[in-house]
Amino acid sequence: MTVTSIGARCRLPGWESLERSAEQAAALIENGMTVGMSGFTRAGEAKAVPRALAERAQRDPLSITLMTGASLGNDLDKLLTEAHVLTRRMPFQVDGTLRRAINAGEVMFIDQHLSETVELLRNHQLHDLDVAVVEAAAITEEGGIVPTTSVGNSASYAILAKRVIIELNLSAPAELEGLHDIYIPQMRPNRTPIPVVAPDSRIGTPYIPIDPAKIAAIVVTDGRDSPSTVLPPDADTQRIADHLTAFFTAEVEAGRLTRSLLPLQAGIGSMANAVVTGLAHGPFEHLTMYSEVLQDSTFELFDAGKLDYASGCSITLSEARGDSVWGNLAKYRDRLILRPQELSNHPGIVRRLGVIAINTALEADIYGNVNSTHVCGTRMMNGIGGSGDFARNAQLSVFITKSLAKDGDVSSLVPFVSHVDHTEHDVDILVTEHGLADLRGLAPRERAPLIIEHCADPAYRPALRRYFETALRRGGQTPHCLEQALSWHVAMERDGHMRSLRDD
Amino acid sequence: MTVTSIGARCRLPGWESLERSAEQAAALIENGMTVGMSGFTRAGEAKAVPRALAERAQRDPLSITLMTGASLGNDLDKLLTEAHVLTRRMPFQVDGTLRRAINAGEVMFIDQHLSETVELLRNHQLHDLDVAVVEAAAITEEGGIVPTTSVGNSASYAILAKRVIIELNLSAPAELEGLHDIYIPQMRPNRTPIPVVAPDSRIGTPYIPIDPAKIAAIVVTDGRDSPSTVLPPDADTQRIADHLTAFFTAEVEAGRLTRSLLPLQAGIGSMANAVVTGLAHGPFEHLTMYSEVLQDSTFELFDAGKLDYASGCSITLSEARGDSVWGNLAKYRDRLILRPQELSNHPGIVRRLGVIAINTALEADIYGNVNSTHVCGTRMMNGIGGSGDFARNAQLSVFITKSLAKDGDVSSLVPFVSHVDHTEHDVDILVTEHGLADLRGLAPRERAPLIIEHCADPAYRPALRRYFETALRRGGQTPHCLEQALSWHVAMERDGHMRSLRDD
Repeated sequence: MTVTSIGARCRLPGWESLERSAEQAAALIENGMTVGMSGFTRAGEAKAVPRALAERAQRDPLSITLMTGASLGNDLDKLLTEAHVLTRRMPFQVDGTLRRAINAGEVMFIDQHLSETVELLRNHQLHDLDVAVVEAAAITEEGGIVPTTSVGNSASYAILAKRVIIELNLSAPAELEGLHDIYIPQMRPNRTPIPVVAPDSRIGTPYIPIDPAKIAAIVVTDGRDSPSTVLPPDADTQRIADHLTAFFTAEVEAGRLTRSLLPLQAGIGSMANAVVTGLAHGPFEHLTMYSEVLQDSTFELFDAGKLDYASGCSITLSEARGDSVWGNLAKYRDRLILRPQELSNHPGIVRRLGVIAINTALEADIYGNVNSTHVCGTRMMNGIGGSGDFARNAQLSVFITKSLAKDGDVSSLVPFVSHVDHTEHDVDILVTEHGLADLRGLAPRERAPLIIEHCADPAYRPALRRYFETALRRGGQTPHCLEQALSWHVAMERDGHMRSLRDD
Repeated sequence: MTVTSIGARCRLPGWESLERSAEQAAALIENGMTVGMSGFTRAGEAKAVPRALAERAQRDPLSITLMTGASLGNDLDKLLTEAHVLTRRMPFQVDGTLRRAINAGEVMFIDQHLSETVELLRNHQLHDLDVAVVEAAAITEEGGIVPTTSVGNSASYAILAKRVIIELNLSAPAELEGLHDIYIPQMRPNRTPIPVVAPDSRIGTPYIPIDPAKIAAIVVTDGRDSPSTVLPPDADTQRIADHLTAFFTAEVEAGRLTRSLLPLQAGIGSMANAVVTGLAHGPFEHLTMYSEVLQDSTFELFDAGKLDYASGCSITLSEARGDSVWGNLAKYRDRLILRPQELSNHPGIVRRLGVIAINTALEADIYGNVNSTHVCGTRMMNGIGGSGDFARNAQLSVFITKSLAKDGDVSSLVPFVSHVDHTEHDVDILVTEHGLADLRGLAPRERAPLIIEHCADPAYRPALRRYFETALRRGGQTPHCLEQALSWHVAMERDGHMRSLRDD
């Protein structure tokens, strides 16, 4: 990363009068306020002001409602939680400390489809924003904000908030300017169609246009995003990737897809990342992505010459990949676009483009319902994120999971999921390391044998078969034995494992 | 209804050579075929050919996959089920005989979001259609099909099927011609935005354009649609309507809605019908509808001078209302449009317009998850229908239900729904005769007390409170006692009622 002169980054005349320290800027946030901050999957979050806010709260307690794009990096959710700053938090998080506070009922967490937050805000269905805090790579002559490595909800937050604090991050690559495409849908019911017709559609401005009179502070910073925690493929994720590559190849052969497939979306995390990387080894070419987070795998596909274009709302990379991408952004930037998450995840655009959505399940049941969020139906992991935006509207909705968790003590395939984030209607393909279940056009009774025999771990198949056979005798569109339906999770809660269901 | 000369209705030159009896046309349907038929909520279904098919199957067994828009009238699903014609059925049904066959596993029922069926068909993700059977009010000079009282999936079925059978229904009002707006989205990924920007947007043709060489038979008929079974409001549905009218009035006062509200969608059935009728008594004006089925209430609002325009994909009326509407269609037709269900229910259009969606729940849980389809999680009632298309994408998603079923033996509010069709993310407002829970922006722990105290019947509130309090002590984002979560349904299955949970 190159540190350039502030003047080239901050072109708003007279900006110097707005320059504040992080502490001064944090003082603009008062107890009880609703605050919107930039940041999506550890990318492009405001870094200095929330840290200063947490420090201040240690001395001078305050609590706020905090809205972001998605998760924050740099341990900010941890610091804010430990300082008891967070009363309410939305729409997503991944921090262990915050998660514990959420599950203890200390922080009210509103888990939302990531495309919906600003729609609700715009219609005053959430509390109006008092302050927005947005990281910028540059500020234009008119006060427009050039975001850094994510757009997330930053644009609408800055436009809708009463006051705006900008963190001008001098270590963000200057070449980020021009990468973003900021478009805000009109108010309903008089909204015209959002004119995105392909991943490379540019329909807005490369900066967030705001009234410069709203800029309450400019804080000059130089922090970096936290690297992603993506892991290299292991044997299981490699098998999942292989099953899916074979499936897409067969779809091409059947004439249902071309070698360019359709615009790809992949959820955050090591498993989805491995699957996208795996596509480099299939007979595919001129791929595109219309996704949410662009991870390492996006750039691996670029480097492999397989990917023509990628649209997302954030870029979250491992340390090594980050060095190579941010140091060579010119190499990629004509093939990249970052949009507001309202657009990257927009149900209508996902439906229009016919996206192939690949998301990770926490658990799935024998009928294809998916739990993405709640351990044993109660304890929040991260949140539904964008999975619902994509899975419901995709041309092909794929969910992936390892068949086992906790070293085999837990089966990810269960009779009845303990929480439903995605209904059977929204799950076309289910894949584990053991195989793939193609559920399209099948009734629940037809789905169960495929899921049990193709996806479950062999050690848990006999118990799943017994459940299904008993349920079948009772009948119904979706046969169940309700008194046993959650018994796998009850065993898990009681014993800490599901080993009593194994049949080795 | 006026019976006109066939020539005025059937303007395709040489059509006489295609005229067949229903029996002759039914003979074109062979064992094992996939057949698409018109018909949506008892409106505009092909009437003679399926009846002839059922009669023929009594002598000469055959079975087919039958796809429609939604439910059929004239007992056709019953007759086809009794004749064992149906191997597979999608995407919706409401017939008692068919329902029993589905729940017995004799008919594979694929329950789908109603906007998705033709999208799947177009991409060959469902079996290609061999034959389409479509009811017409007229056939144009070029062989275009003018539908009758529903569009449903008829347009894409006729366009995609190898052969088309047209039932020309002479008792359908001639004034239906011009009412429909047929538009077929382009193939993905090169689809341009669907240009519907308001309920009254006309973007297509008033007929279904097909290659006339595909017309395999024209059957002249004169059957009528079955009347809807909508019931007049009772005391409970009237209270639900009153709660919702008061809520909308408060939203107008708070500046979140105007007196025109937003385009309204209401699910099928007496309860949603009563709610829409109730709006006539609120301070609303220049209302519009962007809905699926237009029921009696649409015309009551027209007659009350409250409704400016209504867009749907079918018109399903009671006997009395049908007489007044179909006999006076000229009075309404400039304010009506019927579209393919892919458009009436389109996620992107629903999101664009900011529809207010009002749908009926079978049961809801204390966190706001909704079951629309499965009695005790197992036995199919009707299907998810369009509720998912609308609820997920609406500006305001309302679910209504009576708090009790079976004369108080069953609570519609339970600790844990036995099947999830709509997740907590997609339920903004929950209403019963007891009150309304405004769930917007609330975490699950905050939702539960509102739902219990505002919506549940007082006799079941103590048991719900005890469940929630015990669950709260265990913690979690969505606190549950898994070993008790489905106990209300287990009691129902065992005893036939939930009276053991009552506290009178």
